[in-house]
Amino acid sequence: MEWVGDRAMTTPERVIERISLYRRLLDSLKGEGQATIFSHELAGLARGTATQVRRDMMTIGVTGSPAHGYRAQDLIDAIGLYLDSPEPEGVALVGIGNLGRAIMAFFQGRRPNLRIVAAFDVSPEKVGRVIHGCRCHPLDDLERVVREEGIRVGVVAVPASAAQDVADRLVRGGVRGLVNLAPVRLHVPPGVHTTHVDITMSLEKAAYFARQRAGRKEGEP
Amino acid sequence: MEWVGDRAMTTPERVIERISLYRRLLDSLKGEGQATIFSHELAGLARGTATQVRRDMMTIGVTGSPAHGYRAQDLIDAIGLYLDSPEPEGVALVGIGNLGRAIMAFFQGRRPNLRIVAAFDVSPEKVGRVIHGCRCHPLDDLERVVREEGIRVGVVAVPASAAQDVADRLVRGGVRGLVNLAPVRLHVPPGVHTTHVDITMSLEKAAYFARQRAGRKEGEP
Repeated sequence: MEWVGDRAMTTPERVIERISLYRRLLDSLKGEGQATIFSHELAGLARGTATQVRRDMMTIGVTGSPAHGYRAQDLIDAIGLYLDSPEPEGVALVGIGNLGRAIMAFFQGRRPNLRIVAAFDVSPEKVGRVIHGCRCHPLDDLERVVREEGIRVGVVAVPASAAQDVADRLVRGGVRGLVNLAPVRLHVPPGVHTTHVDITMSLEKAAYFARQRAGRKEGEP
Repeated sequence: MEWVGDRAMTTPERVIERISLYRRLLDSLKGEGQATIFSHELAGLARGTATQVRRDMMTIGVTGSPAHGYRAQDLIDAIGLYLDSPEPEGVALVGIGNLGRAIMAFFQGRRPNLRIVAAFDVSPEKVGRVIHGCRCHPLDDLERVVREEGIRVGVVAVPASAAQDVADRLVRGGVRGLVNLAPVRLHVPPGVHTTHVDITMSLEKAAYFARQRAGRKEGEP
């Protein structure tokens, strides 16, 4: 894998985030019937720069034409090759509360090679059921199921107090990429990637900036 | 407001994110009976550096003692003064699906001055009800209710296709800070802050890095 530019070299996560976003934007443009797109257009939608878009496209091995732009389908295909697993990748979801269910409902069928294949909960009412096409197992079976199914991606959607224990079990089972939705920082070994989706922080941040901006409007420059 | 250091100057969002995280960490330390903390300890928990912690603490007006560290309660109080609204701040939630309900359940009672005070949905079964202590209104009343209640913070938890329209209505009603949970980039006027909580992107990123790391383990250095 080659990163183009020193910024990408130091923050590969940001590159992956942008590439994931480009695909979503391109999917919706294609849905609206747009077949080609210029780097500055895509940059406008993604709130980046045209240079950054072109650099990201070089990273995934696509060059556009200055006169005609990129073919949207070419970009979507190249992003798929770069970002997606060549084989179906199973995801384990731990915690089948409202948040867990929202994620199950949202993900089923959206990416053919990224599917929630096993869910876990402590509640006896949920265990043994099939929710959104996904089998619900007792939490005690977590490591065994994750290991047997070769699952490498886990979503932690349990309360804060249980999150570290769940993460430890997922990692012991073989998970190497975690999405943490619990409002707590997880400690994982060096070989494991964690993305923290921190809704509390986002809301506190939105409230802080809303106040700053409302304040500015009422008099300050 | 003063930002200490040029990094904070260029990325104030990151400072707010860290300060929000410190509070969560300090709350749990306090719960475990720890009364004082050193900058390097807090840095370890927040995965930052001691220098950064000390700089962030100067931003919120707290200085620690090299010999005794910081008093946890002093930090929690100072963070509250810096981050929280001095008066109750109402939040509007749009979309009462699984994700919306998860957010309602999670937030009620957690921050005294940041409360979801109005929820909106198109579903006649939800409108008129009180869910998790919060009144559910029809979507058509969005602008009016937001304006009348002086709400400045909004959470967008609707499907992608409806998200931009909802954001436009929130902004017209007076909202200046948005948390967007829909898998689409929102366009808002310059005076409005948006935080995108992108669960799809997080999962695609976790899967990508899980694959890279699993690959490395199986042979590469």
